Amino acid sequence: MSTTTASSVLSRAKSLATSRLFSSTATTAGPSAHRALIFRQHGALNEALSTQTFRALPPPSPGLVNVRVRLAPVNPSDVNVVEGVYPNKPTPETLLTPESHGDQAFSVTGGEPVQGASEEGGVYVPGNEGVAEVTAVGEGVGGLKVGDWVVFAKTQPGTWASARQVGERDVIRVDKGAGEVSAAMLSVNPTTALCMLRDFVQLKEGDWIVQNGANSAVGQLVIQIAAQKGIRTLNFIRKRPEQDLNALQEHLTALGATHTHTYDELTDRAFVAHYKDLTSRQPPRLLLNCVSGPETTGLLRLLGRDAQLVSYGAMSKKPLGLPTGALIFRGLVARGFWMSRWYEEHAREEREALLRELVGMKLREPKHSVFTVQGGWSDEEAGKRVREVLGTAGRGAGGEKVLLRVEDPVA
Amino acid sequence: MSTTTASSVLSRAKSLATSRLFSSTATTAGPSAHRALIFRQHGALNEALSTQTFRALPPPSPGLVNVRVRLAPVNPSDVNVVEGVYPNKPTPETLLTPESHGDQAFSVTGGEPVQGASEEGGVYVPGNEGVAEVTAVGEGVGGLKVGDWVVFAKTQPGTWASARQVGERDVIRVDKGAGEVSAAMLSVNPTTALCMLRDFVQLKEGDWIVQNGANSAVGQLVIQIAAQKGIRTLNFIRKRPEQDLNALQEHLTALGATHTHTYDELTDRAFVAHYKDLTSRQPPRLLLNCVSGPETTGLLRLLGRDAQLVSYGAMSKKPLGLPTGALIFRGLVARGFWMSRWYEEHAREEREALLRELVGMKLREPKHSVFTVQGGWSDEEAGKRVREVLGTAGRGAGGEKVLLRVEDPVA
Repeated sequence: MSTTTASSVLSRAKSLATSRLFSSTATTAGPSAHRALIFRQHGALNEALSTQTFRALPPPSPGLVNVRVRLAPVNPSDVNVVEGVYPNKPTPETLLTPESHGDQAFSVTGGEPVQGASEEGGVYVPGNEGVAEVTAVGEGVGGLKVGDWVVFAKTQPGTWASARQVGERDVIRVDKGAGEVSAAMLSVNPTTALCMLRDFVQLKEGDWIVQNGANSAVGQLVIQIAAQKGIRTLNFIRKRPEQDLNALQEHLTALGATHTHTYDELTDRAFVAHYKDLTSRQPPRLLLNCVSGPETTGLLRLLGRDAQLVSYGAMSKKPLGLPTGALIFRGLVARGFWMSRWYEEHAREEREALLRELVGMKLREPKHSVFTVQGGWSDEEAGKRVREVLGTAGRGAGGEKVLLRVEDPVA
Repeated sequence: MSTTTASSVLSRAKSLATSRLFSSTATTAGPSAHRALIFRQHGALNEALSTQTFRALPPPSPGLVNVRVRLAPVNPSDVNVVEGVYPNKPTPETLLTPESHGDQAFSVTGGEPVQGASEEGGVYVPGNEGVAEVTAVGEGVGGLKVGDWVVFAKTQPGTWASARQVGERDVIRVDKGAGEVSAAMLSVNPTTALCMLRDFVQLKEGDWIVQNGANSAVGQLVIQIAAQKGIRTLNFIRKRPEQDLNALQEHLTALGATHTHTYDELTDRAFVAHYKDLTSRQPPRLLLNCVSGPETTGLLRLLGRDAQLVSYGAMSKKPLGLPTGALIFRGLVARGFWMSRWYEEHAREEREALLRELVGMKLREPKHSVFTVQGGWSDEEAGKRVREVLGTAGRGAGGEKVLLRVEDPVA
């Protein structure tokens, strides 16, 4: 994505942002003021982020709810959003209430001025996932009550904040038994893994599936969920030094992976023949792809007839190359999966059932640490600490996941 | 496709062919003997083909029918089958009756011996399309009676013959009002065009579709059928000298094409912007592809959300490259269409309805000539003439279509 495109998104946003943002001030923050991490221009986390204190949320209008965000992860895609390299751009709506409070001036008071920032620029709150608690419900909200836990079902809801006002449909109730950490990371990766295993091919116990990027967050969840359902997984990962490879293979096996191999093994005819033979009674009809590029094309030869190639990422940054004959004569269908889209298209009952099923699975909680943006800090101090801590997180080279707990600012 | 593969197909066929072929002889051909064009090893038409006289077909067993082939086209894919470069290989079943007459010896008597041919090699009758008349029906055949016209619904039925014995399900009754020539070319290309316009996207009058290879046989049928339904077509063809280009564009316009362009125009941003604008109220949701390769990828930018890319060929012989983001974020689905598969999966009523709809459309009859393999010729003479005439046909550089009328040999 070019800088031009990203900038134009930001500038298109300006008028909306300035006309519809509710007011904020650092000096008059009352006891119910709230705080968010924000960026005004794209850049690295340790340059682009600051924090911002806002006045209390207004009472929710009909169909809306106010929530207190309890915990929100820093995902690689969030880093990409701040950098401006994610295809799914945030909109300034992430910081808007539907009711305009435009008579009150908007001013940025937190953190160092972002390089090149403009007083009238749009303001964005990152954060695509998290768990929150309902603090107020608007008229006509039937499915939620104060005290309920919810996760976010719309794309880019702006979870790196202490409070948000959202549509009832933009959140889904989740059982508190999930635990705060698991719930905070429930609505994107685990749901993606479960839906992809469920929505495209009718799988039964003993069936095989193939996936690449098997050590990705989603990949590891696919392994766990498939194992619980008795589905056998043929997992592929990149080649790496032998010791790392062995350790990773052992890790995936411990999660429930049936077999794990590297892409380069696909060039060996005997290898392919072995797996064709091994799966001959249940030829794989599902290939989950987050890599694309030539290695993914190579995986097609492991598939049976009428298979579905479901893509949810393209880590190789290369296109997906398909032999046309596989489409025509072998019935291959290639499609994508996007969790945000799924949420848009499914009713509350289905969304809640999806989360319930996942909570019931007791999936392994990822290694993590929690960084609390303390209420006692000024916006300036909070911004400085956020840039320090998150500047090195989110890219985690196999490290632990960082979760944010943004406290309301203390008056 | 390598020679090895083609040869192995042929050798796999040997045992079947020798054990199950019904008998043939050139010298005792009775009044109801029949004749077929055959090949025993892959090669060019003017080397591989010969003709063969066979004894009369046995009465049809239950579920089978005997037919007299009236007319069969020479399609490019038939040439590829004889050459051994078509992915869909013929099987020796093309010349078998289900009842074995194995007590009578099989001998090849027609034509020059094919280079490298072996006495016990499998024998193949080419021909994937044609119109035939029912001459006898087996027990339990409910949907056909003697005198009915039928077209072939199975892949590689071997239509380059005077008579065939086939399963009831392998043919579809067609109205004689279609005319012999149109009926002979009805079951592959026109049906492919109609099904692709109908089965994947719900199109209504005024909608746009995009197709490449628009001057192919199927492409021209897509234009005609779409025009009859009020569907607008955005057609793409290869660049060529200006005069040829203009003539082809005029020809396609006369058939009903809304617009016709060359692939290189897609590199012009203004061109793409113009069509995005023109189709903004009905963004194309169907792209028909018989080319693949980079030009096809370029066409994706003309599509709206949730479009279907339906492939039925790959004339560029290059793979289909898809940007993964189009699959994930724009809901693109890529799949193939294969008419043989469609026939397998649809009941007699649906197949007949499909043909009826096409016959009712009065599509333009392609330029053609008929080559009659005369009953009075010996197999040797017939083979020689077939190799002469077909050696230059089938590849038709924009020339007319050749149809075969193979007469029963005169005793």
